[in-house]
Amino acid sequence: MKLWQKENTSTSQLIETFTVGRDKEFDLLLAPYDVQGSIAHVTMLGEVGLMEKDEAEKAVEALQQIAAEIEEGGFKIDENVEDVHSQVELLLTQRVGDIGKKIHSGRSRNDQVAVDIKLYLRAEVKAVKDEVAELFDLLLQQSEKYKNVLLPGYTHLQIAMPSSFGLWFGAYAESFVDDLEMLAAAYRITNKNPLGSGAGYGSSFPLNRRRTTELLNFASLNHNSVYAQMTRGKTEKAVAMGLSCIAATLSKLAMDCCLYMNQNFGFITFPSELTTGSSIMPHKKNPDVFELIRAKCNRIQSTPNELTLLLNNLPSGYHRDLQLTKEILFPAIEELKACLQLCRLMLTNIQVKESILLDQKYKYLFTVEAVNDLVNRGIPFREAYKQIGDDVEGGNFAFDVTKPLAHTHEGSISNLCNKEISEEMQKVLAQFD
Amino acid sequence: MKLWQKENTSTSQLIETFTVGRDKEFDLLLAPYDVQGSIAHVTMLGEVGLMEKDEAEKAVEALQQIAAEIEEGGFKIDENVEDVHSQVELLLTQRVGDIGKKIHSGRSRNDQVAVDIKLYLRAEVKAVKDEVAELFDLLLQQSEKYKNVLLPGYTHLQIAMPSSFGLWFGAYAESFVDDLEMLAAAYRITNKNPLGSGAGYGSSFPLNRRRTTELLNFASLNHNSVYAQMTRGKTEKAVAMGLSCIAATLSKLAMDCCLYMNQNFGFITFPSELTTGSSIMPHKKNPDVFELIRAKCNRIQSTPNELTLLLNNLPSGYHRDLQLTKEILFPAIEELKACLQLCRLMLTNIQVKESILLDQKYKYLFTVEAVNDLVNRGIPFREAYKQIGDDVEGGNFAFDVTKPLAHTHEGSISNLCNKEISEEMQKVLAQFD
Amino acid sequence: MKLWQKENTSTSQLIETFTVGRDKEFDLLLAPYDVQGSIAHVTMLGEVGLMEKDEAEKAVEALQQIAAEIEEGGFKIDENVEDVHSQVELLLTQRVGDIGKKIHSGRSRNDQVAVDIKLYLRAEVKAVKDEVAELFDLLLQQSEKYKNVLLPGYTHLQIAMPSSFGLWFGAYAESFVDDLEMLAAAYRITNKNPLGSGAGYGSSFPLNRRRTTELLNFASLNHNSVYAQMTRGKTEKAVAMGLSCIAATLSKLAMDCCLYMNQNFGFITFPSELTTGSSIMPHKKNPDVFELIRAKCNRIQSTPNELTLLLNNLPSGYHRDLQLTKEILFPAIEELKACLQLCRLMLTNIQVKESILLDQKYKYLFTVEAVNDLVNRGIPFREAYKQIGDDVEGGNFAFDVTKPLAHTHEGSISNLCNKEISEEMQKVLAQFD
Amino acid sequence: MKLWQKENTSTSQLIETFTVGRDKEFDLLLAPYDVQGSIAHVTMLGEVGLMEKDEAEKAVEALQQIAAEIEEGGFKIDENVEDVHSQVELLLTQRVGDIGKKIHSGRSRNDQVAVDIKLYLRAEVKAVKDEVAELFDLLLQQSEKYKNVLLPGYTHLQIAMPSSFGLWFGAYAESFVDDLEMLAAAYRITNKNPLGSGAGYGSSFPLNRRRTTELLNFASLNHNSVYAQMTRGKTEKAVAMGLSCIAATLSKLAMDCCLYMNQNFGFITFPSELTTGSSIMPHKKNPDVFELIRAKCNRIQSTPNELTLLLNNLPSGYHRDLQLTKEILFPAIEELKACLQLCRLMLTNIQVKESILLDQKYKYLFTVEAVNDLVNRGIPFREAYKQIGDDVEGGNFAFDVTKPLAHTHEGSISNLCNKEISEEMQKVLAQFD
Repeated sequence: MKLWQKENTSTSQLIETFTVGRDKEFDLLLAPYDVQGSIAHVTMLGEVGLMEKDEAEKAVEALQQIAAEIEEGGFKIDENVEDVHSQVELLLTQRVGDIGKKIHSGRSRNDQVAVDIKLYLRAEVKAVKDEVAELFDLLLQQSEKYKNVLLPGYTHLQIAMPSSFGLWFGAYAESFVDDLEMLAAAYRITNKNPLGSGAGYGSSFPLNRRRTTELLNFASLNHNSVYAQMTRGKTEKAVAMGLSCIAATLSKLAMDCCLYMNQNFGFITFPSELTTGSSIMPHKKNPDVFELIRAKCNRIQSTPNELTLLLNNLPSGYHRDLQLTKEILFPAIEELKACLQLCRLMLTNIQVKESILLDQKYKYLFTVEAVNDLVNRGIPFREAYKQIGDDVEGGNFAFDVTKPLAHTHEGSISNLCNKEISEEMQKVLAQFD
Repeated sequence: MKLWQKENTSTSQLIETFTVGRDKEFDLLLAPYDVQGSIAHVTMLGEVGLMEKDEAEKAVEALQQIAAEIEEGGFKIDENVEDVHSQVELLLTQRVGDIGKKIHSGRSRNDQVAVDIKLYLRAEVKAVKDEVAELFDLLLQQSEKYKNVLLPGYTHLQIAMPSSFGLWFGAYAESFVDDLEMLAAAYRITNKNPLGSGAGYGSSFPLNRRRTTELLNFASLNHNSVYAQMTRGKTEKAVAMGLSCIAATLSKLAMDCCLYMNQNFGFITFPSELTTGSSIMPHKKNPDVFELIRAKCNRIQSTPNELTLLLNNLPSGYHRDLQLTKEILFPAIEELKACLQLCRLMLTNIQVKESILLDQKYKYLFTVEAVNDLVNRGIPFREAYKQIGDDVEGGNFAFDVTKPLAHTHEGSISNLCNKEISEEMQKVLAQFD
Repeated sequence: MKLWQKENTSTSQLIETFTVGRDKEFDLLLAPYDVQGSIAHVTMLGEVGLMEKDEAEKAVEALQQIAAEIEEGGFKIDENVEDVHSQVELLLTQRVGDIGKKIHSGRSRNDQVAVDIKLYLRAEVKAVKDEVAELFDLLLQQSEKYKNVLLPGYTHLQIAMPSSFGLWFGAYAESFVDDLEMLAAAYRITNKNPLGSGAGYGSSFPLNRRRTTELLNFASLNHNSVYAQMTRGKTEKAVAMGLSCIAATLSKLAMDCCLYMNQNFGFITFPSELTTGSSIMPHKKNPDVFELIRAKCNRIQSTPNELTLLLNNLPSGYHRDLQLTKEILFPAIEELKACLQLCRLMLTNIQVKESILLDQKYKYLFTVEAVNDLVNRGIPFREAYKQIGDDVEGGNFAFDVTKPLAHTHEGSISNLCNKEISEEMQKVLAQFD
Repeated sequence: MKLWQKENTSTSQLIETFTVGRDKEFDLLLAPYDVQGSIAHVTMLGEVGLMEKDEAEKAVEALQQIAAEIEEGGFKIDENVEDVHSQVELLLTQRVGDIGKKIHSGRSRNDQVAVDIKLYLRAEVKAVKDEVAELFDLLLQQSEKYKNVLLPGYTHLQIAMPSSFGLWFGAYAESFVDDLEMLAAAYRITNKNPLGSGAGYGSSFPLNRRRTTELLNFASLNHNSVYAQMTRGKTEKAVAMGLSCIAATLSKLAMDCCLYMNQNFGFITFPSELTTGSSIMPHKKNPDVFELIRAKCNRIQSTPNELTLLLNNLPSGYHRDLQLTKEILFPAIEELKACLQLCRLMLTNIQVKESILLDQKYKYLFTVEAVNDLVNRGIPFREAYKQIGDDVEGGNFAFDVTKPLAHTHEGSISNLCNKEISEEMQKVLAQFD
C-alpha cells in the first residue's frame, strides 16, 4: 500500500514495476539513515510542540529499536510496501499506533530522501577516504622500500630519462592527495542538512531546522528550502566527481601495471595466485585484477557525465528523474572501495625487477645526464645538447650506467620528499573531521 | 625554427600544421605566465650557482621588459616560431645573447608548460570566482527586494506549494556557495608548483624548487617529479569540474528563466533590448540570452568528460595528447565568464510579475497549507491529508489565498536566511586567499 | 573450478569475487546463444574432421537438450562454476563424457563470447525494433485521430504559430524512422560472425568459418581474426548508439508530455491510475511514468560514452576490461524495451484538450497567418511583417481564430503525410530482414 | 542591421557579441549551401505562383552569381550583418531590389538553416567517406605487402599467439567497413529535405516541398514539419556518431603505433622527418603525429555526448541552443579529415621490423601451436593443454619458431580474406550514392 493511495483508484502493476525499478535495492542502504533522520525530526517535533513530549519519546524509542534491528540485519522492505520510508513508518505505526502517523508532520518525502542520501553519502565518502588513506600509506612504504630500484622513464612512450620505483610509487601516493581535495569539497557539500525543506518550498510548521542540524551532526544546513531541494542530484554529482578523481588515479596506476607486466617491459610481476590463466594458452599470467580495476574505474569516471545527462535542462523543483541518482552512484561507491582494496592487495604483493637499466636498450635514458654533465662543466645548454645529439646520431653515445645518480632536488630520485607528501596528506585528511 | 631541430632533417609542413593546430592561439594566453615562470627559474638558477649572478640579473631584467611588452599588448608568436616558450627564448637571446641560451638549464618544456598552465589557471579560477561573487551579491539583493512576491512552487512540474521570488533568487545564490567549494578545491590543486620536475623525472641539477615555489607565490609544490608531470591534464580536469558545477547552476537558472518567460507561465519579463525578435513572427520576444547561457553552460559541463576521454588509459609520463587540454579548457573559461556577466546583466533588469497566485488555477498550491491548518488543530496528518484530498476530489476545495503565509522556519518564505547564506559565501571565498 | 586452473595454485576468493563481479547475472542471458554457437561449432568440427562424425552428432544432440532446458527455464550457473561457457561445457561432459572435452578445439573463450554477444544483440536489436514499430503505429493512429485538434506551436518556448496534435504525434512517429536507420546500421554490424577467430589471431585448425556463418544465419563474417576480436566492445557501442537515438526521441516526447501535463499548459491528461499522487499534496497527479521514461532514456543515452571511456586508448587485442560491456549495455536494452512499452500504454490512454487556441493568450500564434494573408494579397513580406509588428506593438492585433487553417503543403496541419511516413518506416524495417 | 530589428529599440552590443559568438565563422562554411537552398526555394516559389516567374528568374540568376563569388572566395559576412542568411539576402536586395525581399516568403530562418546544415553535412559526410576509402585502400595494400612479416599477438597485453602485419593492417581496414555502416546511416538521415517546414509548424503558403526536394537532389523529405524542425541537432548528432566510429578506429590504430614505436616493442619506425625531437633529450624520435591523431580522435568521440548534453531534456520546438551544434560539430569534421590524411601519410612511410619472433622472449607465442599439434595427433584438448602447461611451468617448453605457420582458415595469417573485405567495403560505399 502506498501512502498517497486514495480509495477507488488502483495503479496498474505494470506501472508500479516500472516506476519502482531497482529502487528498493538501494533503499535498503538508506535504512539506517532514514531512521536516524526520523529520530532527529521527531525529537525536534517534540521540542517545538508539534508532537506531545511523551509521544515523541515513545516514537524515538521505537525508532531506536528499529535502528538496532537494521544493524542486526533483520530489516527488509515488504513486497507490498513502496519504499524504505513507508516501511519504517509502517513498523512504527504497528508498534506505537497513532503516534506513528504524526511523525510525518512538517516533513515531505522529498526532504526525507534528501537527508537520507546526505547522511549515507557522508558516511560513504568517509569510508572511501579511509580506503584511500590506507592505499596511500602502502604506496609510500613501497616508495621507500624500492627507492633505489631504477626504472626507465618514458615520455611519448619513448625511452626518456632514468626514473625509479621510489618515484613511481610516490607519484601515485601524491596523486591521491589532490584527489582527496576534490572529495573533501564534495564532503563539505554533503555535510549540510536539507531536512525541514519539505517538498522544496518549506512549510507553515514552526520547525527548528538548526536543531535537527545539530542532532544529525551536520556542519551546517542547506538554508534556502528551494536550494535544499536542488541539492538532490547536485550532491550526488559532486560526490561522483570526487570519486572520479580517485578512480582516474587508480585507472592510470592499473594501466601502468598492465604495461609493466607485459613481457616487453617486464618491470613487475605478481604471485600467480593473484593473476589469471587462459583457457587456451597455458603460459599466460594475465593481469585481470588490474584490467578490471582500470575498467571499473573508467565506469566510475563516467558517472558525473551520466548524472549531468540526468539532471541537465530540468527546471527547478523536484522531478521523479532524481530517483535514478541512486542506481547510478551507489554501486559506483561500492566498486571504488573494492578497487582500492584490491589494488592494496596487489601492490602489497608486487615483485619488482632489479637492475633493469643495465640492459643496453636503455642507455639513451642517460643522454640528459650526459648533457647536464657538460653543462655542469660550463658548456651552454644548447651546445651541450647538440654535442650529445651528434654522438647519438653517429652511434657513439656511451655512458657509465652503473655510476650512482645524484638527483638531489626536491622530488627527484634521491630526494623523494615522501615525508612532505605525507604531511600534505594529513592536512587533506583533516578536512574530513 | 624549432629548438629541437637538428640540421639535415626537415619536418614536412603538413605535419607541422597538423601538430601545432590551434595551439599558438592558446599559447598567447600563457605568455605573461611563461615569462613569470622564467623569471622565477632564472632567479633561482642565479642563487644556486647554475648561472652567474650578473647573468641571471640581466636575464631577469630582459624578461621583465618582455613582461611589460606583453601587458601592453605588443607580443605575438612569429610565424616560424613553434610556441610561446620558443618566442620568449628567442626575444631573450636577441637581447642578452648567450645568456638567453642558459636559462633552459634544469628545465624541460614539460615543466615549463606545466607551470605556465598552473599560473594561468590560478589567475583564471580567481577571475571566475570574482564573477560568481558578483552574481551572488545580485541574487541576494533581488531575493531581498522581491521577498514578498509569491510564485507557484512546482514538483514534477505540477503545481505544488507556494514559493516566492525571494526563495527563488536566494536558492541560486546559495547554489553558488556549494559550487565554489568545488572550485576552491580545484584552486588548491592548481596552486602547487610543478617547476623543476623537468620532463617528469627530475634531473641532476641542484635546483631549489622551494625557492621557485616561494617566488611564484604557490602555496606548495607538486613534490614528486613524476607526479608533477601527472598534474598535466589532471589539473585541467579538476578546474573543468569546478567550472562545471558553476555552469550547472547557471544552466538551471537559465532554464527556469526560459520557462518563466513563456507566456503560459508569464512570471518574468525583460526590457525588449535584452530579448530578440523573430524573422517571421513580429510578436516574439525571445529569451536568446538565456538559451545561449544554457547551451554554453551545457557545453562547459561536457569538458570534464572530454578531458577524461583525452587522458583515459594513458600510462604515466608525458604524451603529446596533453596539448589539446588547452583548446578544450581555455575557451570554456572565457565562455563561463561571459555567461556570468550576461546573467548579471539580465537579472539586473528582470521584471517580476506581482499577484500571480491570485489566479484561480493556482489555488491547489494551498492544499498543504490547508492540511497543515488541520494538523495544527490536532488532527493527525494522515487524516487531515485524506479530508483535504476528498475536498479536492469533490471539487470543494477552497482557501483564502490572500491570507499572509506564516512560513517561519529557517529557509522558508518569511525567513530566507540570506544573511546566513552570505556568511557561508564569505567562508568559501576565503579559501581562495 | 576454472578451466585454466592448474593444480597447486589457488586464486584467492577475494580476487574471484572481484573479477567475476555481476558477470554471471548477464551470462545467463547469453546461455541460449552460447549453446546455439556451440552447436554450429561442433557441427562444423564434425564436417571438417576435427571431431568424429558420430561424436559431433552426440555432442549436438546433448547441446540441443541443454538448449531445451534453458528455454524451459531450468538452467543456472553453479556457484563454483566461473561462467556460462564453463557451465555448458560441464553439463556436456557430464552427459557425453570425453566428447565434451573436444568441442573447445579451434575455439577460444574470446571468439566464443564474441559470437554469443553477437547472437544475443542481434535478437535484442530486433526485439527493440519491434517495440519501436508498435509505438510508431500507435503514434500515427493518434496523429490521424487528433489531426483536427490544434495546439500552440512554440519556438524559444515562446508562443509562435498554430500546431496540432496531428503534427505532434506524427513528428515523433517520423523521428523513429530516422532512429531505426541508426539501429539498422548497428544491426548490420552485429549480424557478422566472429566465431573461428580464436583469441584474436586465428589458429592452425582447418576451420570452416563460412559454414558456421551459414549455420548461425549470419549475413557475413568478421573476416580478419584480429578485427573479429576488435568487434568486442565496438559492436556493443554501435548498438548503444542505435538505442541512444531511440532513447533521445522517447526522452523528448516524455519531456513534452511532462510540460503539457503541467497546469500552465494543460494540453493533455491521463486517467488517474496512470499517474501518481503525493505524500503531502492531495491534489497532485504526477507524471511519474514520463519522468522515469525521460530519466531512463537519459541514462541509456549515456551508454555510448560510457563504453567509449571503457575502450578508449586500449591497444588492439583482448583486455579483460571488455567484460564490463555486458553490465553497461544489457540492462539498457531491458530498460529501453520497458520505456517503449510504457510509453505505448500511456499514449493509448492519453486525453487531449480540445479548443485550446480559443484562449486569448494564444492569439499571437496567428501573427504569421496575418502576415501571410497580406503577402498573399501582394504586399512584400518585409513590409507585411512590419505592419503586423506595429499592430502587435500597439496592442491592435486581432485575428479570427475560428477560421479554419488552410495549411496544405506537405507536412503541414492539413496535409500530415502520415501515409508517406509509414512507407518510409516500412523501408527501414525491411533492413532488419 | 538585423532583419527582425524594429525601429526605436536597440540591442546592446554586449548581447550581440554574446549571442553571435563564433557563429559567423561557421556560417561561412554554409554560404554555398545557403545559396543553393535559396535557388531551389525561389525556383519553386516561381513555379507555384508565390513569385512572378520573371522575378524568380532574376533572383535565381543573381543567386547563381553570388554562388560563383562564393566559390571564388570573395564572400564574407559584413561586420554589421548578423549571419550568412542576412548577408545573402542583403547582396540579393542590392542587386535585384524588391525582388530580394520576396524570397523569404514561405520560409523561416529555421528551415533555411536546417536545409543549409543538411546540404553541408551531406557534402562533408561524403568527403569523410572518400578519405576513409583512401586510407582503407592503403591499409589493404600494406596488409598484402607485409603479409609474411610476423608480429606477436597480445591478449591482456600479454604475449599470446603469433600474429602478422598482414593481419594487423587488414584488421583496421575491415574496421572501417563497419564504421562506414554507421556513417552511411547518418548520411541517409542527412539526405532528407526539411525546407518548407518554416519555423517548425509549416505555413499557409501553397509550397511544393517535393519540388525543392527534387531540385536539391535529396533522397526524400522530412515530411512532418514539426519533425523537420526536430532534425536540427538530431542530424548533427547522427553525423557525430558516424564520425566517432571512424575516430575510434583511428585512435586505436594510433595507440598501437605509439606502442609499437616504443623501444620495448620496436615493431615499427618512421623516417625522422615524420617524427619529432625533444628539447632536452637528443635521442628522441617522438610519435607526435600518432599521439595527436589519438588525442584529436578522442575529442571527436566526445562530440555525440556533447551534443546530447546540449539537446537533452529540451521540449520540442526550436531553441537558440541549437546554434552551438555548428561549433561543436564542424571543427570535428575538419579534424577528422586531417587525421585521416595524416594517418595515410604516416602509414605510407611506415617501416616494419622483420624477424621479430626470432627473439627468445616470444617463444611462448607458440604454446597454442604446440597444444594444437597434440590435438591434431588425437589428444583431447584439455589434456594437451595440461601437458604443454606443465612444460611451460617446468621451463621445458620449446618450439621450432622458424617452421612456417599453416593457418589456413578464413581470416587467419595465411588466408587474410582481403579480397572479401574489399568487396564488403564496396557494398558499404555504394550506400552513399
